[in-house]
Amino acid sequence: MRKGIWVLNGPSLNLLGVRRPEIYGRTTLKEIQAQLEERCQREGVPLVFHQTNHEGTLIDLLHEAREKAAVVLLNPGAYAHTSIALRDAIEAVEVPVIEVHLSNPQAREPFRRHSFVAEVARGVVAGFGALSYRLALEAALGWIQEKEEDPL
Amino acid sequence: MRKGIWVLNGPSLNLLGVRRPEIYGRTTLKEIQAQLEERCQREGVPLVFHQTNHEGTLIDLLHEAREKAAVVLLNPGAYAHTSIALRDAIEAVEVPVIEVHLSNPQAREPFRRHSFVAEVARGVVAGFGALSYRLALEAALGWIQEKEEDPL
Amino acid sequence: MRKGIWVLNGPSLNLLGVRRPEIYGRTTLKEIQAQLEERCQREGVPLVFHQTNHEGTLIDLLHEAREKAAVVLLNPGAYAHTSIALRDAIEAVEVPVIEVHLSNPQAREPFRRHSFVAEVARGVVAGFGALSYRLALEAALGWIQEKEEDPL
Amino acid sequence: MRKGIWVLNGPSLNLLGVRRPEIYGRTTLKEIQAQLEERCQREGVPLVFHQTNHEGTLIDLLHEAREKAAVVLLNPGAYAHTSIALRDAIEAVEVPVIEVHLSNPQAREPFRRHSFVAEVARGVVAGFGALSYRLALEAALGWIQEKEEDPL
Amino acid sequence: MRKGIWVLNGPSLNLLGVRRPEIYGRTTLKEIQAQLEERCQREGVPLVFHQTNHEGTLIDLLHEAREKAAVVLLNPGAYAHTSIALRDAIEAVEVPVIEVHLSNPQAREPFRRHSFVAEVARGVVAGFGALSYRLALEAALGWIQEKEEDPL
Amino acid sequence: MRKGIWVLNGPSLNLLGVRRPEIYGRTTLKEIQAQLEERCQREGVPLVFHQTNHEGTLIDLLHEAREKAAVVLLNPGAYAHTSIALRDAIEAVEVPVIEVHLSNPQAREPFRRHSFVAEVARGVVAGFGALSYRLALEAALGWIQEKEEDPL
Amino acid sequence: MRKGIWVLNGPSLNLLGVRRPEIYGRTTLKEIQAQLEERCQREGVPLVFHQTNHEGTLIDLLHEAREKAAVVLLNPGAYAHTSIALRDAIEAVEVPVIEVHLSNPQAREPFRRHSFVAEVARGVVAGFGALSYRLALEAALGWIQEKEEDPL
Amino acid sequence: MRKGIWVLNGPSLNLLGVRRPEIYGRTTLKEIQAQLEERCQREGVPLVFHQTNHEGTLIDLLHEAREKAAVVLLNPGAYAHTSIALRDAIEAVEVPVIEVHLSNPQAREPFRRHSFVAEVARGVVAGFGALSYRLALEAALGWIQEKEEDPL
Amino acid sequence: MRKGIWVLNGPSLNLLGVRRPEIYGRTTLKEIQAQLEERCQREGVPLVFHQTNHEGTLIDLLHEAREKAAVVLLNPGAYAHTSIALRDAIEAVEVPVIEVHLSNPQAREPFRRHSFVAEVARGVVAGFGALSYRLALEAALGWIQEKEEDPL
Amino acid sequence: MRKGIWVLNGPSLNLLGVRRPEIYGRTTLKEIQAQLEERCQREGVPLVFHQTNHEGTLIDLLHEAREKAAVVLLNPGAYAHTSIALRDAIEAVEVPVIEVHLSNPQAREPFRRHSFVAEVARGVVAGFGALSYRLALEAALGWIQEKEEDPL
Amino acid sequence: MRKGIWVLNGPSLNLLGVRRPEIYGRTTLKEIQAQLEERCQREGVPLVFHQTNHEGTLIDLLHEAREKAAVVLLNPGAYAHTSIALRDAIEAVEVPVIEVHLSNPQAREPFRRHSFVAEVARGVVAGFGALSYRLALEAALGWIQEKEEDPL
Amino acid sequence: MRKGIWVLNGPSLNLLGVRRPEIYGRTTLKEIQAQLEERCQREGVPLVFHQTNHEGTLIDLLHEAREKAAVVLLNPGAYAHTSIALRDAIEAVEVPVIEVHLSNPQAREPFRRHSFVAEVARGVVAGFGALSYRLALEAALGWIQEKEEDPL
Repeated sequence: MRKGIWVLNGPSLNLLGVRRPEIYGRTTLKEIQAQLEERCQREGVPLVFHQTNHEGTLIDLLHEAREKAAVVLLNPGAYAHTSIALRDAIEAVEVPVIEVHLSNPQAREPFRRHSFVAEVARGVVAGFGALSYRLALEAALGWIQEKEEDPL
Repeated sequence: MRKGIWVLNGPSLNLLGVRRPEIYGRTTLKEIQAQLEERCQREGVPLVFHQTNHEGTLIDLLHEAREKAAVVLLNPGAYAHTSIALRDAIEAVEVPVIEVHLSNPQAREPFRRHSFVAEVARGVVAGFGALSYRLALEAALGWIQEKEEDPL
Repeated sequence: MRKGIWVLNGPSLNLLGVRRPEIYGRTTLKEIQAQLEERCQREGVPLVFHQTNHEGTLIDLLHEAREKAAVVLLNPGAYAHTSIALRDAIEAVEVPVIEVHLSNPQAREPFRRHSFVAEVARGVVAGFGALSYRLALEAALGWIQEKEEDPL
Repeated sequence: MRKGIWVLNGPSLNLLGVRRPEIYGRTTLKEIQAQLEERCQREGVPLVFHQTNHEGTLIDLLHEAREKAAVVLLNPGAYAHTSIALRDAIEAVEVPVIEVHLSNPQAREPFRRHSFVAEVARGVVAGFGALSYRLALEAALGWIQEKEEDPL
Repeated sequence: MRKGIWVLNGPSLNLLGVRRPEIYGRTTLKEIQAQLEERCQREGVPLVFHQTNHEGTLIDLLHEAREKAAVVLLNPGAYAHTSIALRDAIEAVEVPVIEVHLSNPQAREPFRRHSFVAEVARGVVAGFGALSYRLALEAALGWIQEKEEDPL
Repeated sequence: MRKGIWVLNGPSLNLLGVRRPEIYGRTTLKEIQAQLEERCQREGVPLVFHQTNHEGTLIDLLHEAREKAAVVLLNPGAYAHTSIALRDAIEAVEVPVIEVHLSNPQAREPFRRHSFVAEVARGVVAGFGALSYRLALEAALGWIQEKEEDPL
Repeated sequence: MRKGIWVLNGPSLNLLGVRRPEIYGRTTLKEIQAQLEERCQREGVPLVFHQTNHEGTLIDLLHEAREKAAVVLLNPGAYAHTSIALRDAIEAVEVPVIEVHLSNPQAREPFRRHSFVAEVARGVVAGFGALSYRLALEAALGWIQEKEEDPL
Repeated sequence: MRKGIWVLNGPSLNLLGVRRPEIYGRTTLKEIQAQLEERCQREGVPLVFHQTNHEGTLIDLLHEAREKAAVVLLNPGAYAHTSIALRDAIEAVEVPVIEVHLSNPQAREPFRRHSFVAEVARGVVAGFGALSYRLALEAALGWIQEKEEDPL
Repeated sequence: MRKGIWVLNGPSLNLLGVRRPEIYGRTTLKEIQAQLEERCQREGVPLVFHQTNHEGTLIDLLHEAREKAAVVLLNPGAYAHTSIALRDAIEAVEVPVIEVHLSNPQAREPFRRHSFVAEVARGVVAGFGALSYRLALEAALGWIQEKEEDPL
Repeated sequence: MRKGIWVLNGPSLNLLGVRRPEIYGRTTLKEIQAQLEERCQREGVPLVFHQTNHEGTLIDLLHEAREKAAVVLLNPGAYAHTSIALRDAIEAVEVPVIEVHLSNPQAREPFRRHSFVAEVARGVVAGFGALSYRLALEAALGWIQEKEEDPL
Repeated sequence: MRKGIWVLNGPSLNLLGVRRPEIYGRTTLKEIQAQLEERCQREGVPLVFHQTNHEGTLIDLLHEAREKAAVVLLNPGAYAHTSIALRDAIEAVEVPVIEVHLSNPQAREPFRRHSFVAEVARGVVAGFGALSYRLALEAALGWIQEKEEDPL
Repeated sequence: MRKGIWVLNGPSLNLLGVRRPEIYGRTTLKEIQAQLEERCQREGVPLVFHQTNHEGTLIDLLHEAREKAAVVLLNPGAYAHTSIALRDAIEAVEVPVIEVHLSNPQAREPFRRHSFVAEVARGVVAGFGALSYRLALEAALGWIQEKEEDPL
């Protein structure tokens, strides 16, 4: 079976679109998932989508993605800035990872400037809101196509 | 139904009163819970009380408290100093949070001086042992009463 | 004579309630003093209350409190962050000190994160506005009662 | 006339595709320009494309873009890490800027971790090679369309 | 009565002109005061002039200036670099403050580079010797005139 | 019943021997477990062996080990560098802990130089690959024997 | 010919008065130039006035000013914080330089606190808006007069 | 009249010998003063001795010592570590100052390692208890004798 | 001849077992040497054992070990934290080095946290007292055996 | 045609020999150029010599040198300490670069201690005045000769 | 035999009085030794006096002093700032050590501000030139007398 | 007798040319010595050449060079980065010192970026391998000739 795209979301992203919709917009994480699924279906690429508040569960999922995913889109939330364990898991699973952020962490508090995930991510897309996910998905689909055309 | 007070306790606080009672006192977390429950009952305010060693579970509980709690008393233990995810969850749930500590972290090792939780907590009570919880509870009860008298 | 509770207030706290009442509230330091006095009178505990903009005067008062106070409530204002002399005076007088702040300094500018006073204070109450004083007073009254019941 | 998309490239990017093609790929900056032009032509959006090694010229161009550009794609190269003047120019021109990098600077030397440009950029795309530009262009085209549909 | 200009001088400025006149010049603080008074008299603006070595007295004077001064010229001397209490007092009194220095602190030892006062001062004049005061006075007089012409 | 040796393994150690065997060797964590079990069986000392990616679960297990383990061998993986909660749990359980690492963290990236676990561990063995575990086990067995011979 | 006053302006100052006039005021750099020219004409002192976004051009101009200027007013904009080359040029030309800023950089972001230019400037005027230039001009005119009266 | 030796003591030194005599010894500051007076009387050198908790008063006294003292012995207590104003006053008065400490600040908390006073003191004696004063006095008497023998 | 194991001990380790035996134990460095010799003799591996307080002599010995030692056990004492020269010598001699410490330096003062030696050591054993040496010796013997069995 | 030696000089070096000749010597940059030309002519190696105050122009010239120079002598002046763009250009052009300084930057202010250029330069010659250039030229000529004798 | 006073001098102190006598004075280390010997002879206390440029030799001598010295006067020179090994040796030998410096290191370069020796020295005398030794000797003689009068 | 050139080499430089010749080249320190001797003989300048691993011996040799050397070439190896004692010895001997390095320390690990020796060396030559010595020798010979021609 064709390997799919895994989208993993970290802490508090479940509140997206629910909390203060007048500020953060009304797009929920469910709706982002729907948009990505629709796009993947057109390409015949399976999509797996998770949200968890647990650092350990993100690592469990990355390990699982090791065999099953062609590309991982990871929005690590605040764990980007504190989790060396997440960084090591990304290095270990040897699947290309794209770090995704709704806002641009570098434009916020100083403690959000450094990302352990960015150190090992293949690419980064940040600051475009829900569009960040769709841009990252395009990159992932492009990589899968390239790989299938030239499997070396 | 009236919204209640949620008391969330972080890592290793379950060992309170059990470990080295000659030093840390014989008051267990269960007994603190009983004191707080007795006080809340008198006011007719529901009390929810949890302890967990998992950062992710603290975030799950904060999310749950979002709809159900009027005030959260949070003793984050060591996660105060390392968890930006916890900080973000507090910001997201928009319920006033009081940070509670048995001892005074600023009087201990340098790595306990900074608290990510304190940056977003409405108030802080630290250093009074079990009394820290009771003082924080009084503040919480006061806020609830004020809110009910002047719901704007 | 029974030893009392000394409440010492540092720089610019005299402007409380006068300056920008629409923002900081209309409770003046005089009114806080009145609230605390009324509460102490009920318990028969003497209350001494001072405000000064002078670091040296705070130290003079702490020295004086050495013989006369059972507990000191200290709102050091900005001296919390810069005065090692104040820290040493607290250590020297051997009276338990509770650090009180109207707002939560850890939620403000980085230079307010560290408190030399907190390093030697027995307990800290911060962020509850005028209520911070009343909570600290309850703790102080509790300690006095405990001490009188068990003078060892 | 419709406002266009300006693509500004900083120091040494002119060597792209020429230098060590076996490592950095054979796509030259000219070819990236061609790809972007082709895409913009289809949408009827004007494209302006520059490369310069001069910090001052980047600022001159940003000033010029102030009236003429709907969105700026900026690959500041190493100036990202050292130029506060560039940062201020971006803030001054009030045109949304997308920071673009071929590689992921956060995965390189520590002195590349901080970007003054990222502090004021609306979005960031990094690490996808030439694809970084195409993803950023999609975002820019999306914003232009949104703006035209809802000019408020 | 018209509000005046208060000129407050911090530690060791009383030695000006007395100590090593061959180096620091023979202009004493008294003479600076006379120059400023003469200029203010011509404009009919009252001048109040103080020097003190006490941080607390500077704060007392700022509090007093709150009602009586239109503008404060403050030469905080070394307290510029260490006094958060002074900074807070300036913020509290809501009178525009101009920080004045005889020499240019940024051209001296590293510990003189940061000024807590500068963070809240409206303007800074430094490095012109006695002329620093006269330039600051011109600015203050200009502000008073503007305010009187357009009291909003 | 005789207290045993608990071996606790942190994040991504489950991938040992599976991932890139040509580089990291073909010894899996299962095989290390088998080696240690065989050695313990010879000594009649019970062995408990866990791996988890969850910081909270490591703390849960340490709490459980409090009553049941004579010595804990802990390979905290990346949590060594970020988890104050783990550090506090080790201090709380009062069982001697040996920190074990396959590689030598001090010879790697700067962010791996500091270990919160090492601050409270009785001993450290690092850099010997699977042999690190066997050396630590010998130390643990030695301590148990000493303790049984001289229970004071 | 009498040596004149050179006024050199750094990056993005050309946008003054044009950009967001409701915030920064409607005074343009051209108008500031006109004010200074009018004042200089009255004194018979030539005025040279430049704005450039290029660090190198600022240095070229300083070199040129070496022979032709009696005093330089320099508003280095953001180059104040990053350009050691500018600092060295000021030291090299041996003409007294007054650093001028419209706003007060010390009251802004931390990366604006240090000025390489201030380390070698004779005086600093900051925070008075367009008035900063006029105050600096008065100081410059005063110096020229003093020099002409006492050419030693 | 012969210039004397001034001994200035900073915050909380008045508690010496009174507080915890079993630890800090029973020698009070009064007794140290008596020892020094007796020694000075033998040499016919006037002794002036002060203690104050006020930074400003220490500066006032240093200014007064400027004309009257041949040498100043200064035990600045905690102000050594925080007071740039004190440092500047020492520089200003041009009387040789010996910094005296009962204990050795470098052997205590990190924030006591740096002394602004030591930067401008001629000599330092620390760690010998009351003997520190007597050793410093001997040095001072030696300097006075040298000066009188060779007034150049 | 078979290459042996060299055990090199740094400053003040000669005082082991002599100084404060009630605290550090009565095992002297001589006795540790005897234990290691006895163990090596059984394996027929030569043992060379040195102690020196001189950084230069440690380097001389490492150079000598370059040809003669199969493995070096190095207890660098305090030179671990300060000697880049020692670090370079270890890199230069290309013999595997095991860093040995009686106590666990990471559990002590901050200045003992970083070890230049650890950066280039193959393995580290710390915190087991005299047992640290015996564990390191086992590792060394294991490596020698492996090497002899598989000399590639 | 034989590839030559390019000598590139950064900001304010044009003032060499003109400014304060009694201090910096009377050798002008022109004379250094003449000395180097004379030496190169004897060897039949073309010499290209530039001075510019513009960071961007230095990068332009390095790019041009990419095809035409065998070795580059670069005196980056103050850009050594601030320009990552210059560093990247050196890396990009793949021509060996020798960093040349008249004085020894490490013996001056702390902000001159670090050189981004030195990180990628093949060799460094500093502190010998005009002789620094001649020594660097000898090294360059030696490399060219070696390369021609052994073109691999 | 009565235990004596050991005076140990570190690197380059042998050049004292020889090098630049017009600046550092003409007192040589030999003459200081003679002064101390004369004073000790009067008290009947043996004096041992050494100078060495070798850190290791200073440690050897401290070890030797362990049995033979009542007090050590140590002028560690530059090793004060870099030698943790020296610090550990002082701790190990359990003889009271007085740190002596001719000049006041805190008044010099920042890298001389911290002394590892001061952290473990009983007392410090610095800044009095040769007199520093004589003052320290008086303290040492006083301690010996006290100890002999009250050997507990 | 004519003063000569002293070449002093620090730790591990004796291994040059022996260790990994395929990487570091086959030129040994002996051969460098021979090259320099041959060159000096031609000029009639005595050459003294030493290598030692001991910091103290380097200082002893510098002291000896004080009277006998006209110039010192010093390759301090790793002591460049850690030895303030070496720095002080160079300052003390008042002979011009050229710091020589085979590789360019600034292009290596961060802890090699700062050189205490460079702070007091007259010139620095680094990164040219054995050629570094020959270039430094030319500079030294030039200085000797200048000095002999113009002995002032």
